[in-house]
Amino acid sequence: MAKEQLNQFKAADSQFAERVKDSFLKQDALLTIGATIQKVEPGSVEISFDYDQRLTQQHGFIHAGILSTVLDSACGYAAYSLMPADAGVLTIEFKTNLLSPAKGERFVAVGEVKKPGRTITVAEGQMFAWEGAQEKLIATMTGTLMTVTGRSEVAG
Amino acid sequence: MAKEQLNQFKAADSQFAERVKDSFLKQDALLTIGATIQKVEPGSVEISFDYDQRLTQQHGFIHAGILSTVLDSACGYAAYSLMPADAGVLTIEFKTNLLSPAKGERFVAVGEVKKPGRTITVAEGQMFAWEGAQEKLIATMTGTLMTVTGRSEVAG
Amino acid sequence: MAKEQLNQFKAADSQFAERVKDSFLKQDALLTIGATIQKVEPGSVEISFDYDQRLTQQHGFIHAGILSTVLDSACGYAAYSLMPADAGVLTIEFKTNLLSPAKGERFVAVGEVKKPGRTITVAEGQMFAWEGAQEKLIATMTGTLMTVTGRSEVAG
Amino acid sequence: MAKEQLNQFKAADSQFAERVKDSFLKQDALLTIGATIQKVEPGSVEISFDYDQRLTQQHGFIHAGILSTVLDSACGYAAYSLMPADAGVLTIEFKTNLLSPAKGERFVAVGEVKKPGRTITVAEGQMFAWEGAQEKLIATMTGTLMTVTGRSEVAG
Repeated sequence: MAKEQLNQFKAADSQFAERVKDSFLKQDALLTIGATIQKVEPGSVEISFDYDQRLTQQHGFIHAGILSTVLDSACGYAAYSLMPADAGVLTIEFKTNLLSPAKGERFVAVGEVKKPGRTITVAEGQMFAWEGAQEKLIATMTGTLMTVTGRSEVAG
Repeated sequence: MAKEQLNQFKAADSQFAERVKDSFLKQDALLTIGATIQKVEPGSVEISFDYDQRLTQQHGFIHAGILSTVLDSACGYAAYSLMPADAGVLTIEFKTNLLSPAKGERFVAVGEVKKPGRTITVAEGQMFAWEGAQEKLIATMTGTLMTVTGRSEVAG
Repeated sequence: MAKEQLNQFKAADSQFAERVKDSFLKQDALLTIGATIQKVEPGSVEISFDYDQRLTQQHGFIHAGILSTVLDSACGYAAYSLMPADAGVLTIEFKTNLLSPAKGERFVAVGEVKKPGRTITVAEGQMFAWEGAQEKLIATMTGTLMTVTGRSEVAG
Repeated sequence: MAKEQLNQFKAADSQFAERVKDSFLKQDALLTIGATIQKVEPGSVEISFDYDQRLTQQHGFIHAGILSTVLDSACGYAAYSLMPADAGVLTIEFKTNLLSPAKGERFVAVGEVKKPGRTITVAEGQMFAWEGAQEKLIATMTGTLMTVTGRSEVAG
């Protein structure tokens, strides 16, 4: 049995990548973190950032909330990439599991849509830590996103 | 029926407040956010920060991950306040629900232990937005924390 | 500071209690568990059931999934009690924390709306175990519910 | 970049499959549901059950809590399969996302360890509905499990 349906989504809006990147640049929190968007595909987004002591908790690891910030944006934009051109995206909730201490030189979050929907989209995120050529899965997220239309304060 | 047992916890370590505040000052991520610790009681911690555009998502609200960063620290220190003097605290997982857009001048996170345990502690957090004299509940967290002993990299 | 806004909700539909009870009787899973509805107020529902070995996991405690079944119904009906007469309720997601082994003679789930909304409602549940006159909080839930209208297969 | 590390786990106890199946037969809740265990591999367990009206919610779909019962057991036993012979497994918490209404003739839950640990194991579950030859992913779970040793009431 196939354990997972293949996630081959088709974007409703051909300008989805520009739309995601434009919105990303408005997320000042991600600029503060130093995050950059690496990849935008229909239903899948990758965001990375470098280790920075300004982002740490008391043991010198990246703070779980900072990991969640980047994972939430990766999941949110993965969902957003499949939405119509005039929609906005809002996070309803997410859950983060911390699998290993967030040590490393560079961190890469991959957000992927698990189930798109007209109103509700579920996405999953994985955060990898890189130390040299070594990659390690350090955190996962499941997020629930909402498509919002007709609310001017939530455009994009 | 009482809907909730009264949470009247007793700290195992009389120096719990100093211990929490010392650890807090080592969380560079909280300094980056501009957060300060307002209150430390056995099983309960309050952390606040002011609105800052550097912390926003694309609609100008505080990013859900930044709210989670502060909520996670409030929940983590609420748990830590009840732990023995030689223990460290690690977050296993948390879930954040976003109830309303994070608009406001000032944000206050209250973390409270729901169930302390030798190894596992469950804490709940609430984030309030203040606009003038108006307070609004905008996000909640449930977090699972672990007491860690004998691991030098996770002291405090 | 008030830690929590007082939850004094007003039902949109004056027949809310009948509506909840009618729907409850259609939940065959709850009949299989032997659950009965104890209280229906605007935004708050109580459901109880007795210990039964048919509901246990391998250590003789009530299975976490059975606790979740009753908690989900309590949260769902708490949300449903505030919805318009022609709406249906669907669970989007929930999270259950198991605080103590589910031992006892009788179990009472209290579901309460934390934040009602036109489309999305967040509710919280608590499960108490009773042994004689002793009450103990053994599990909590946070659930996200959706108001559904105009879908005939999801009426009530 | 590999999106996911390959999950090739090795069981610590060569009798892991017998241990899981023995424990499964003590879960009366699963017998009540009519669930049977289909597959036990190191870090991966499959449990299935047939549609039964006794397990439904008000719209005739399988109750989300019943799905969670089977998913929790699949995740729990996936974790348990990697634990030492003298350990017991306890669920700390889980989160369930409902992706589509639980309609179908047969339901198959696949639980897989995402990150094993000495004390804490994180597992993920997927629930598929089968209608004829059609398979559909209808729910996901992320669960946190604890290895318990030296507590006689939690053996197996």
